[in-house]
Amino acid sequence: MYELLYWLDLFGIVVFALSGALMAGRYKLDPFGVVVLAAVTAIGGGTIRDITLDTPVFWVANPIYLYVILLTAVLTIIIIRRPKRIPKRFLLIADAFGLALFAVLGTEKSLALGAPVFVAVVMGTITGVAGGMIRDVICNVIPMILQKEIYATAAILGGSLYALFRYLAWPENIAIISAIIGALTLRLAAIYWRVSLPAFHIAEKEESK
Amino acid sequence: MYELLYWLDLFGIVVFALSGALMAGRYKLDPFGVVVLAAVTAIGGGTIRDITLDTPVFWVANPIYLYVILLTAVLTIIIIRRPKRIPKRFLLIADAFGLALFAVLGTEKSLALGAPVFVAVVMGTITGVAGGMIRDVICNVIPMILQKEIYATAAILGGSLYALFRYLAWPENIAIISAIIGALTLRLAAIYWRVSLPAFHIAEKEESK
Amino acid sequence: MYELLYWLDLFGIVVFALSGALMAGRYKLDPFGVVVLAAVTAIGGGTIRDITLDTPVFWVANPIYLYVILLTAVLTIIIIRRPKRIPKRFLLIADAFGLALFAVLGTEKSLALGAPVFVAVVMGTITGVAGGMIRDVICNVIPMILQKEIYATAAILGGSLYALFRYLAWPENIAIISAIIGALTLRLAAIYWRVSLPAFHIAEKEESK
Repeated sequence: MYELLYWLDLFGIVVFALSGALMAGRYKLDPFGVVVLAAVTAIGGGTIRDITLDTPVFWVANPIYLYVILLTAVLTIIIIRRPKRIPKRFLLIADAFGLALFAVLGTEKSLALGAPVFVAVVMGTITGVAGGMIRDVICNVIPMILQKEIYATAAILGGSLYALFRYLAWPENIAIISAIIGALTLRLAAIYWRVSLPAFHIAEKEESK
Repeated sequence: MYELLYWLDLFGIVVFALSGALMAGRYKLDPFGVVVLAAVTAIGGGTIRDITLDTPVFWVANPIYLYVILLTAVLTIIIIRRPKRIPKRFLLIADAFGLALFAVLGTEKSLALGAPVFVAVVMGTITGVAGGMIRDVICNVIPMILQKEIYATAAILGGSLYALFRYLAWPENIAIISAIIGALTLRLAAIYWRVSLPAFHIAEKEESK
Repeated sequence: MYELLYWLDLFGIVVFALSGALMAGRYKLDPFGVVVLAAVTAIGGGTIRDITLDTPVFWVANPIYLYVILLTAVLTIIIIRRPKRIPKRFLLIADAFGLALFAVLGTEKSLALGAPVFVAVVMGTITGVAGGMIRDVICNVIPMILQKEIYATAAILGGSLYALFRYLAWPENIAIISAIIGALTLRLAAIYWRVSLPAFHIAEKEESK
């Protein structure tokens, strides 16, 4: 079980690092810039989670995560060369995997550290959305959470499902995998069919003054 | 006295969550996106304060704050519907209340935790401005601190007034309320009459190269 | 040796505070806004480093840093008046000094606190680039790390050189100074001759859908 969490965590690091490296590719960064943007995206959410819970930051405790990010960024640079064109959606899909994985794994870690359920789901949501948000803010791109398609909802769903499955005493492995699949399915559906919930919109009154 | 601090703190959370939800309303977010933006705005400053002072983060220690944010966001969505137009200033005023409350309460908490006066005022300023700054950066809106009207000044004034009143041995309750009123009055005056201090401006030399 | 670190650290604070104050000068901020932007730039990187390493934040432990920032911001405002025009490069150069100093000093502090070498170099890089990145994100300017010229590379070089020199058992003082000079030289060369590494660029396929 511990092993599953570990591999899923590394996989989340890989997909978020990939999304950061792909975003870097839009900016003609040099290789070290690519690595830094990949790293910020991959470790941003988990770092905020660990600091807020006052537990040792995962990548300081275990530098393997940093090596994985470095490797991911280097492979992305090598494999995707200039002549090759890749669809915009690839970044969205990598981000979706990271979102679903980290939302559930963040909730799991918070619960394991003794956080109340509601706090744990909030922590999971932060873990899932923060890295991508930092990536988008640095790159001055509209953060995905501000876009019409379901995003925060998928992260909150992932964490909530996991908390529910644990409450229902499902085995840990099955609870984790099911919650990730739930969040991922919702987010991918939102990307492919542009699904969105009814929006909250304020028409601002122009002030005469 | 403890009670007063608690209620003022919750009130600060409500007004900042409101400002985040109103900002979200400009972006046609779905309800969960609204909740996340409200939460980031409301807990951003205090989270940075608590982490920097290495004290347990307030909303992890006491999840009531998260429930209040959720309730505020939901009520904002329900009450303010599309046909209803609200003046732009409403967000500014909610932000002003949050700024004044958190600048003073952040200074109080830092002093109570043993920080030197100057550090405490800086912490108060961070508590007051950071949440709104994160909100504005995510939404790609020019942060209020970069605008001409008095903003950082009001936060620094609030914290300094509180430190002064405590130094003068005023009763805690009166010191808190007076400092908040001072900061709030200054900021609201700046909003209504567009008051500003003399600006610091650098005319950049165009380089020939 | 401890003394050298201390003075270099204060010098890094001064140059980053200067870069923040100069950036503020583009926005016609009032003096308190200038101070806040200078402070955020100067303490941003080191604060993230200390929080992540779970060590007391340097400016909370020793408020002298805050006084130095205040003094720097005030002097910048007084000395650089409106009629005076300053070249754009001045900000870049101040930032370059801060980048080189903090990348090396951040690596040194992390190693001294027992972090593994790779983690320490990453921490140094974060210390060097984060303050300026926060400054640029708040001001909605394209962060320097996203620009073509060598930036992240110089920070990574500084930390790596220091780690190498320590491994080679160079005296601490010489290792520090040499690593700073190495990083600074590379960054200044990049600014003056617009040196850049081969860029990683993805040409995105326009999707027909």
